Amino acid sequence: MKIKRVEHIAIAVDSMKQSLELMRDTFGLELEYEEQIGQTKLAMLPVGQTYIELLEGQGPESGVTKWIEQKGTGLFHICFEVEDIEGAIAELKAKNVKLQSETWKTGHGGSKIVFLDPSCTGNVVIELAELPAGH
Amino acid sequence: MKIKRVEHIAIAVDSMKQSLELMRDTFGLELEYEEQIGQTKLAMLPVGQTYIELLEGQGPESGVTKWIEQKGTGLFHICFEVEDIEGAIAELKAKNVKLQSETWKTGHGGSKIVFLDPSCTGNVVIELAELPAGH
Repeated sequence: MKIKRVEHIAIAVDSMKQSLELMRDTFGLELEYEEQIGQTKLAMLPVGQTYIELLEGQGPESGVTKWIEQKGTGLFHICFEVEDIEGAIAELKAKNVKLQSETWKTGHGGSKIVFLDPSCTGNVVIELAELPAGH
Repeated sequence: MKIKRVEHIAIAVDSMKQSLELMRDTFGLELEYEEQIGQTKLAMLPVGQTYIELLEGQGPESGVTKWIEQKGTGLFHICFEVEDIEGAIAELKAKNVKLQSETWKTGHGGSKIVFLDPSCTGNVVIELAELPAGH
């Protein structure tokens, strides 16, 4: 597969409001859009070619809530952009890389996403995303 | 301050050799350069506009060794590129943001770097770097 860029870097936060203020006041980063996916609220702040993605859990089923319970707030995962998520999934399966789901799911901004199992990535949570055309 | 880009994303690893193989075999990422700074070995792998920085501790004084002892391997920090590190440091001090050192130090590739105290960044380890001219 061809990794085009780091599409985002995700940070697990306790308070979206406080984290947005911190990113704006300390670094001058501004919100581009917010979205709710299941029990997870996300906010995307562009920085050059990538985004800082702030993630706040809104219930016990959110992966962010579970992450913070185990690891605390802070860096959570990185997302690589790929051209073809189905091709990437097939390639990873052929390499015996474990995925967190059999197929892609719908992620931020209408993207098609899949997470790799951290046991196959040196304990780094890595997401792959195919962005919708024009993004 | 103006953040130009995410210059790198740092991953604390147990084995540089295995991690380089994993990044190459799983994602097709290739090594651009390696460097030793104090007791820390680093390897830089370009991805679009940013780098994956693999970090291996080579002794007890390495911040990477200490990080892995406390947190395990995995995502460690992110680095924002700034134009003017001294201006950024002055600005952060004026905002009462705590830094891990009073002034900048020499980092990867001849950069001037400073780390913010995670207590001021929602528990995210954030580095600022001014790159040498031409980088």
